[in-house]
Amino acid sequence: MLTLEPGAAPLAPGYVAVAGSRIAARGRADGADVLPVARNRLDAGGRIVLPGLVNTHCHAPMVWFRGLADDLALEDWLTRFIFPLEGGWLNAGRIFLGALLASAELIRGGVTTVADGYFFAGEVRRALAQAGLRGVVAQGVVDFPAPGVPDPARNLEAAREFMDSGQGDGGSLLTSSLFCHSPYTCSAATLCAAKDLTRRRGLPFFLHLAETRGEAAELRRTTGLRPAFYLDRLGLLDDLTVAVHGVWLEEDEIELLARRQVKLSHCPESNAKLGAGVAPVPRMLARGLTVGLGTDGAASNNNLDLWGEMSLAARLHKVVAGDPTLLSAPQALALATREGARVLGLGDFVGTLAPGKEADLIVVELNRPHLTPLYDPYSHLVYAARAADVCHVMVGGRWLMRRRRLETLEEPAILEEVRGQSRELADFLGRLSRA
Amino acid sequence: MLTLEPGAAPLAPGYVAVAGSRIAARGRADGADVLPVARNRLDAGGRIVLPGLVNTHCHAPMVWFRGLADDLALEDWLTRFIFPLEGGWLNAGRIFLGALLASAELIRGGVTTVADGYFFAGEVRRALAQAGLRGVVAQGVVDFPAPGVPDPARNLEAAREFMDSGQGDGGSLLTSSLFCHSPYTCSAATLCAAKDLTRRRGLPFFLHLAETRGEAAELRRTTGLRPAFYLDRLGLLDDLTVAVHGVWLEEDEIELLARRQVKLSHCPESNAKLGAGVAPVPRMLARGLTVGLGTDGAASNNNLDLWGEMSLAARLHKVVAGDPTLLSAPQALALATREGARVLGLGDFVGTLAPGKEADLIVVELNRPHLTPLYDPYSHLVYAARAADVCHVMVGGRWLMRRRRLETLEEPAILEEVRGQSRELADFLGRLSRA
Repeated sequence: MLTLEPGAAPLAPGYVAVAGSRIAARGRADGADVLPVARNRLDAGGRIVLPGLVNTHCHAPMVWFRGLADDLALEDWLTRFIFPLEGGWLNAGRIFLGALLASAELIRGGVTTVADGYFFAGEVRRALAQAGLRGVVAQGVVDFPAPGVPDPARNLEAAREFMDSGQGDGGSLLTSSLFCHSPYTCSAATLCAAKDLTRRRGLPFFLHLAETRGEAAELRRTTGLRPAFYLDRLGLLDDLTVAVHGVWLEEDEIELLARRQVKLSHCPESNAKLGAGVAPVPRMLARGLTVGLGTDGAASNNNLDLWGEMSLAARLHKVVAGDPTLLSAPQALALATREGARVLGLGDFVGTLAPGKEADLIVVELNRPHLTPLYDPYSHLVYAARAADVCHVMVGGRWLMRRRRLETLEEPAILEEVRGQSRELADFLGRLSRA
Repeated sequence: MLTLEPGAAPLAPGYVAVAGSRIAARGRADGADVLPVARNRLDAGGRIVLPGLVNTHCHAPMVWFRGLADDLALEDWLTRFIFPLEGGWLNAGRIFLGALLASAELIRGGVTTVADGYFFAGEVRRALAQAGLRGVVAQGVVDFPAPGVPDPARNLEAAREFMDSGQGDGGSLLTSSLFCHSPYTCSAATLCAAKDLTRRRGLPFFLHLAETRGEAAELRRTTGLRPAFYLDRLGLLDDLTVAVHGVWLEEDEIELLARRQVKLSHCPESNAKLGAGVAPVPRMLARGLTVGLGTDGAASNNNLDLWGEMSLAARLHKVVAGDPTLLSAPQALALATREGARVLGLGDFVGTLAPGKEADLIVVELNRPHLTPLYDPYSHLVYAARAADVCHVMVGGRWLMRRRRLETLEEPAILEEVRGQSRELADFLGRLSRA
């Protein structure tokens, strides 16, 4: 068992006791500790128990666009595929169904907490609540027409209504917040008013930041400032702000974000596939920035598999710097668990297996050729394990998956319904291209 | 069904007919073609059939060292772990067992052809033959003591004996050849004599080339030549030479390799994890070089999963160049199949699903959240599928895996035996560090 508490050694064998939604105790199961009395037991012998993974950046409903259009220049991809579909095909029901599909993939991959940002966020929240996932659901805000918000003048109102309607929905597992798309799609006035809405509620505030070189250059041209300094001038940088990507940040911007205690979501698979660049994560960590991992949406990834992100993060920063000691396996696993929880302001509740924390945990199969032999569990989890190795998933003391069977979702029905409607999506695109 | 023949459209639905070890026919199963009469049928509805994957560079027995020591500087890793274990712990029996374990992982991941280079290559050949895999098994040659070849003066003799003993062993599926470790561990005389041994037999000749910047610089210091020009001066470059890695090759070296019709094995996960660098594959492809993908050994990867290599290759070259149109999904899948077969000189026999070719094929499950919806099978296979999605594997008309059950290997016994002996490995290292 890996508790992911800083500096803690693996407990092999270990135990974790769950009472209600929380971890009551955890320790050694080799006879050194007295095992608590339990009503139900799960023998995880030959497996690894660890905290559930935390996906700090996702657009769940974009699973609809998985593999629809790859290997294109960003503008081509957006204007020929994503924008027309978001404008003319997605609707509330499809957002809900897409978020259910995404939830199935997330649970199967051992994600227990997800931060999602998209439109019709109420539908996303309803889907994640049904799945039993923990997380932050954020309503997207942009200064142009968006799914469910055709009039951009209403974007903040829609976000405010969504946040205020979220009190109590989904039990205590889901926080409802707001996600400004970016400094280049939201005016200064929108950004400031949005941050004000979340700040007053003590909620995390998300935005894409410095994802592409062109975007950072354009911001500098229009505002005279580099991205982090621009946000700082607007007063957006504080410990509740989560900046996503941060690929094109310079050293003094990293230093500024760290000083303001801003959090960063690192999405290496999406950044790589879009050719956006490599975020300077080792330097961010050296500056003390809190960094988590995110999958981004399936339209640009094309999966919601955080194991791939760990593997890529641990490899990519080594090869970019030519230094094989950078971003070690234990560090990469910490980003995907403990640090991800801190990014979302949930560090006191999840991210490690410590008594009193919520019982969000996963069990990973080891009895597989690609995970044999075993010398170092951190190494296997980062460099060899994959989503399919997760066999059990628990959130808040409730099983979401047992023996690879989803307990909260009707997976076959979801897959079939998505397949059927995806043919309508293809037809829609076909009509569009002929028009 | 994807046949991977150049320019061929997906056959959806499609069929493939196997007679003996070969593909008798393939075509459309939508009523347009008359389906052949068959004794046994496998319904692969809702799945994708494609050629088996070709792993062009592996050190199968190094699965023993999987996750033993990560995130270290190369020299540390070699001198503190790999060399002592190769010198004092590995033996014939362990090489055989390790290669069985590697075979199980390879088959589970849809690899049907593998090029392996290591010591005690006769044991590797015996294991791959038992597994039923196709491939090239090569005896390692270095100018210092190696497992099974304590006297380096005998290195070429050992390789020659291995090659000559291989006629007929393992049926017709395995070719026995030779693998010179590198220009910095083999003298010019060794390299030339080794190439001569393989050339006279019409066999592929493997060597690591320009993996690290330091190695390329050192070669230039001692020979006055950059790596490819040094090999060319020795007369080693021809259409039977497979250069592995090729990270630090300059434009004129790529051009030289292409002119000589040298083949290249690209191992992006290993190169990244060791911080070695990124091979200039898009420029190699533009120059007409034949490139395949390899996993390298599990000591530096740490898995033998070619799906990870495809995903990383397709992403890495985009992000390094800042160009999302580089190395598209169909290209990446071609490198892992058709082009890999050409790298190994097997292009006329495997790598595509064409009548008359050997029946090496795999079936990939699609009925999974992370592979739903489906618009483009190439995209899913490269950006979303993983080894665990492979459900059936056939080599030369023989099933090696059916419904995820290995048909040729006693997987549980192999895993248990490796686990037991891996504790002895850890003890050996412990005694060594105390000595």
